[in-house]
Amino acid sequence: MAVRVAINGYGTIGKRVADAVAGQPDMKIVGVTKNRPSFEARRAVELKMPLYGATDKGVDALKKAGFSVAGGLKDLLKESDIVVDCTPEDLGAENLRTYRDHKVKAIFQGGEEHDAIGWSFNANANFRDTLGKDYVRVVSCNTTGLIRTLYPFHAAGAAEDIYAVMIRRATDPNDSKKGPVNAIEPALNLPSHHGPDVASVVHALPIHTMAVKVPTTLMHLHAVVVRLKRAMSDQEVADLWSRQPRVMFVKGAEGFVSTAQIIEWARDQRRPRGDLWETAIWGDGFKVEGKTLYYYQAIHQESDVVPENVDCIRAMLRVTDEGAKSIEVTDKAMGILRPGARVEVPARAP
Amino acid sequence: MAVRVAINGYGTIGKRVADAVAGQPDMKIVGVTKNRPSFEARRAVELKMPLYGATDKGVDALKKAGFSVAGGLKDLLKESDIVVDCTPEDLGAENLRTYRDHKVKAIFQGGEEHDAIGWSFNANANFRDTLGKDYVRVVSCNTTGLIRTLYPFHAAGAAEDIYAVMIRRATDPNDSKKGPVNAIEPALNLPSHHGPDVASVVHALPIHTMAVKVPTTLMHLHAVVVRLKRAMSDQEVADLWSRQPRVMFVKGAEGFVSTAQIIEWARDQRRPRGDLWETAIWGDGFKVEGKTLYYYQAIHQESDVVPENVDCIRAMLRVTDEGAKSIEVTDKAMGILRPGARVEVPARAP
Amino acid sequence: MAVRVAINGYGTIGKRVADAVAGQPDMKIVGVTKNRPSFEARRAVELKMPLYGATDKGVDALKKAGFSVAGGLKDLLKESDIVVDCTPEDLGAENLRTYRDHKVKAIFQGGEEHDAIGWSFNANANFRDTLGKDYVRVVSCNTTGLIRTLYPFHAAGAAEDIYAVMIRRATDPNDSKKGPVNAIEPALNLPSHHGPDVASVVHALPIHTMAVKVPTTLMHLHAVVVRLKRAMSDQEVADLWSRQPRVMFVKGAEGFVSTAQIIEWARDQRRPRGDLWETAIWGDGFKVEGKTLYYYQAIHQESDVVPENVDCIRAMLRVTDEGAKSIEVTDKAMGILRPGARVEVPARAP
Amino acid sequence: MAVRVAINGYGTIGKRVADAVAGQPDMKIVGVTKNRPSFEARRAVELKMPLYGATDKGVDALKKAGFSVAGGLKDLLKESDIVVDCTPEDLGAENLRTYRDHKVKAIFQGGEEHDAIGWSFNANANFRDTLGKDYVRVVSCNTTGLIRTLYPFHAAGAAEDIYAVMIRRATDPNDSKKGPVNAIEPALNLPSHHGPDVASVVHALPIHTMAVKVPTTLMHLHAVVVRLKRAMSDQEVADLWSRQPRVMFVKGAEGFVSTAQIIEWARDQRRPRGDLWETAIWGDGFKVEGKTLYYYQAIHQESDVVPENVDCIRAMLRVTDEGAKSIEVTDKAMGILRPGARVEVPARAP
Repeated sequence: MAVRVAINGYGTIGKRVADAVAGQPDMKIVGVTKNRPSFEARRAVELKMPLYGATDKGVDALKKAGFSVAGGLKDLLKESDIVVDCTPEDLGAENLRTYRDHKVKAIFQGGEEHDAIGWSFNANANFRDTLGKDYVRVVSCNTTGLIRTLYPFHAAGAAEDIYAVMIRRATDPNDSKKGPVNAIEPALNLPSHHGPDVASVVHALPIHTMAVKVPTTLMHLHAVVVRLKRAMSDQEVADLWSRQPRVMFVKGAEGFVSTAQIIEWARDQRRPRGDLWETAIWGDGFKVEGKTLYYYQAIHQESDVVPENVDCIRAMLRVTDEGAKSIEVTDKAMGILRPGARVEVPARAP
Repeated sequence: MAVRVAINGYGTIGKRVADAVAGQPDMKIVGVTKNRPSFEARRAVELKMPLYGATDKGVDALKKAGFSVAGGLKDLLKESDIVVDCTPEDLGAENLRTYRDHKVKAIFQGGEEHDAIGWSFNANANFRDTLGKDYVRVVSCNTTGLIRTLYPFHAAGAAEDIYAVMIRRATDPNDSKKGPVNAIEPALNLPSHHGPDVASVVHALPIHTMAVKVPTTLMHLHAVVVRLKRAMSDQEVADLWSRQPRVMFVKGAEGFVSTAQIIEWARDQRRPRGDLWETAIWGDGFKVEGKTLYYYQAIHQESDVVPENVDCIRAMLRVTDEGAKSIEVTDKAMGILRPGARVEVPARAP
Repeated sequence: MAVRVAINGYGTIGKRVADAVAGQPDMKIVGVTKNRPSFEARRAVELKMPLYGATDKGVDALKKAGFSVAGGLKDLLKESDIVVDCTPEDLGAENLRTYRDHKVKAIFQGGEEHDAIGWSFNANANFRDTLGKDYVRVVSCNTTGLIRTLYPFHAAGAAEDIYAVMIRRATDPNDSKKGPVNAIEPALNLPSHHGPDVASVVHALPIHTMAVKVPTTLMHLHAVVVRLKRAMSDQEVADLWSRQPRVMFVKGAEGFVSTAQIIEWARDQRRPRGDLWETAIWGDGFKVEGKTLYYYQAIHQESDVVPENVDCIRAMLRVTDEGAKSIEVTDKAMGILRPGARVEVPARAP
Repeated sequence: MAVRVAINGYGTIGKRVADAVAGQPDMKIVGVTKNRPSFEARRAVELKMPLYGATDKGVDALKKAGFSVAGGLKDLLKESDIVVDCTPEDLGAENLRTYRDHKVKAIFQGGEEHDAIGWSFNANANFRDTLGKDYVRVVSCNTTGLIRTLYPFHAAGAAEDIYAVMIRRATDPNDSKKGPVNAIEPALNLPSHHGPDVASVVHALPIHTMAVKVPTTLMHLHAVVVRLKRAMSDQEVADLWSRQPRVMFVKGAEGFVSTAQIIEWARDQRRPRGDLWETAIWGDGFKVEGKTLYYYQAIHQESDVVPENVDCIRAMLRVTDEGAKSIEVTDKAMGILRPGARVEVPARAP
């Protein structure tokens, strides 16, 4: 029987999680909430997703605009096994009380503090430890991206120290209010929160992070240096990544000279919304010099956490006890590239 | 029997025309050309589109990179009833000689000069006059957008004078080389070429145009003033547009406050590549004051000419003699909104 | 004896007006207000401008940060013959009551509504009618730019109709919060407010305006079409503009292909802050076709109203009754180019 | 007697070096070269700098446009003790042969390879070793910025390892051709050239660098991590930097939240062209945690190397043998902040 999933907050993340959940063989969407009669609310209706108001005011606003509204958040919770909270940053902790009152499990997004939720999740890193939990945070897009490519070094006991600078997109592509238009803004509170965020999932990873905001909307880009405990070859590193789920390779030599071409590739693939759920590593943009590994990776801020949310549902409801199994089901349903898939020209014919 | 279509230049426009043609009930792609072993070339292979080199050098480069290449442009032309030329600007005139030598009809894009090709096309405006032609230019994205919303005023004999300013996106989203990063660049050669371009299809339309380039990649935006021959109401104007194919309405009140949200809508609709084939008019951003009509429209530079290319194929090969019939088939196959479709919240329940 | 001028709001406009006033032979700054201990406040101190708090809270905040504060706004008003209100948009009307209570004349900026202030000003257009007024609005940067180049057509009775589209910079260069980063945003309320704003100074000018916001910080750019009552030559038009104060010419052929090079020119001239007080017209980017004149002009949003504020002070306090005289004094003190100055290569030697 | 300095290439860097040299008590400009009749060429004439053509073609183009031309590059070299080569990247090595043929010493910019020139310079790091050299490269803006803030750690033997990521502006503010408009572009060749460039001046500094390009024009920003050999306090680090020439502090708490406000500060200071010759460190954006130091610094790509060029002239011509003396003279003439100057609110009165 399909797990009943509610989405609280049908926005940038919420609508993507809703689509991904709806496409899983073992899950269904029982409703989504919205507070304003926007084109996104209308899209939910087109997709036959039952529409609820996130607040009483929202119910009224939607009704006034002619929407057929199934009820408020509390009504929705009664129909749900689990709710994925995709409300704006910092509302989550307050919402948690509501979910607890209604005895519904809840997933929160990376905008919330770890301490406010109590547990943080990444499918590859701590699925098993998340089994049966009631309240879990899926870490942010940047943190998810870092864990995906750093976890194997951690698992192999290969990382002495990690230095990562996050060059963050200014705002999502669907926003036209926020800047900067022509400036670079550093995150002055040092080190940036990304290091502790990674550590909330992969404890004791020796990572040091800084972050800046730049005028682009497409993707984040990470510049990472790993001091290895022992010298490795480029091939060893590539092999390590090739076994990781949700990691893909792109090459500058094939036209991927910036984040622009990565998104173009995703559009060409007919990915919904041009999303890139995988973390993209430049196959010709990483290098080991002795014990120092340098690499760049690009992170699609709108979508890389979506499959993680799906897996998190399975862990919390114990749909399966195996992370690898969940990842396989999720990835197949969504069309995520298999581990190690390379974006490259076809092999030369023999 | 399906018409055999070749695409010369599988880039931003070419790959979209290829997809659209491949989806038509009465057409098929016999091959596409490419000159470099890029991720776009690989995508063509994934889509089972026979890959040709556009030049001898291209054939070699592709083969060297391991691609299976079906031949050169001349080989492709032998298999084709018609070729859609999507090569970079200003190569078209030279290519025309090759097509003529091979007795293959050819469609060119708006980057070519009207005089170099001899005939210009818009599906709604001059389908019938294009029947059986050998060499035709589908006018540019901006010109197509202008014709779509201005033609009905012309047909109704309602326009005294038209003033349009094109605020053009700097470059396509998949490009990271061109600017400007932080400047506005006027087209100093006045009036801009858009007026004569419109007139190459709709003769004697009294249009005056100017253009600037601005640092964005998503869409062009037009600010248009029409001096009407007689006073009209907002409703009359809306009705005129509502009968036009490939014109859609968006509303600021529903969240469409800029081009960013229009593209978001197209992404949410699961449009391939987030494309918007229609010209988007702001339903709450046009106004008639006496005999003066003001309106804004947004143009998706990457895709609005795609359905026009499809219709142009039918006209030139006389697949049908009726423009309206061709438009209907094209639009159904592509998923283009029906005329007058409004992007708005559902009507209030009774 | 020098006129005593207060600046309420030492920000983007206020600090520029303060500098300009301080440089006039017949004026002096008696104080400027600020509410936060920022680097701008510190700059006022460095320049020996007496620092006041705009509000009681501001006085406290500045004192707490170690600034020597001369008092509050009311203290400053007691020392002043006139106050230039450069506070954020829409605070002006409220401030007007304070100024009236203190019997101090006041100038407001273009962010205020004409009706809230009662009179609007441009030095060249209505200096004489402004003599002795108590509360006056200096119209906005865009409106000032339009008046400068359109007024001569009005004065010559040459304009039948005017169509202007303002392509506006997203935000000032010193701001990093506001967007859009990658979108074009139309002003949906049509026609835009610029037409009525022009008419608040030059009554009955038949102008129709639209406006969009684009991701740049340097300058606004206007695309203007004038339907002339009679055919004119390019030279006649150039001559008309060449007699106007605060109008300058740039040429694409000399490297001015966008707003970027205009600002570069101002920087090279050692203009303070790289400001451009003049309205820049492209000498090779305007054209008359029959009775239709097309032209582009660039507007430095941060500074073009500064000399207008200076002249407005003279008009309101009747320092002189002659606008031309005031303009001459202002322009000489600031280093503004004389009317008709052309930015071009030196004439060929004989 | 004043040293006779020629500038070959009066562009972004050349015009700034020319101004700086002209303002020194012991130097004079004998001529500048230009190849096109642009507004920059005209500015040189306004400033009474003798104008030469960089090539024969340039001489002709300038003459044809009406400029009075003093001759070609070779004529200029005859009048010069030293030439500062500010021609576009990668022309330097070729020009070196010309300079050698004319027995004129020459300074090159950071766009050239170290090996092509043979010696690299930073005023604070290796003035003395540069005494009397014939051909010297002043390292690039980014490298200069890195050396300024890292050299003291090197000199104190305090740095174990350094990791720096350069977030580079896309293009200069006066350019409107280059992008990216909306993308982040990594420097795929790893590690980036900045590490070896630093080492070309400060040998054996253990620095590891990466770099990305982002859509902004104002400044570069560096995110730097230093692994210290011993734990230091924030105050010790601040003190170290406070003794360095051409290093200044800004604070987020005073409004410097991005590169935008730093440039605004320079504009407010009436710096020519709004230039910032100093390297700006965020006083509330650096931190030591144990033996790990994190800091951000902003680099004005157009101007930070200008004082270094001036000092390099003195070293090569042995005007003085003391770097500290040269720096003092240069900085006083240009108005550069004294070491350790802090951008902060005035100290609280006692």
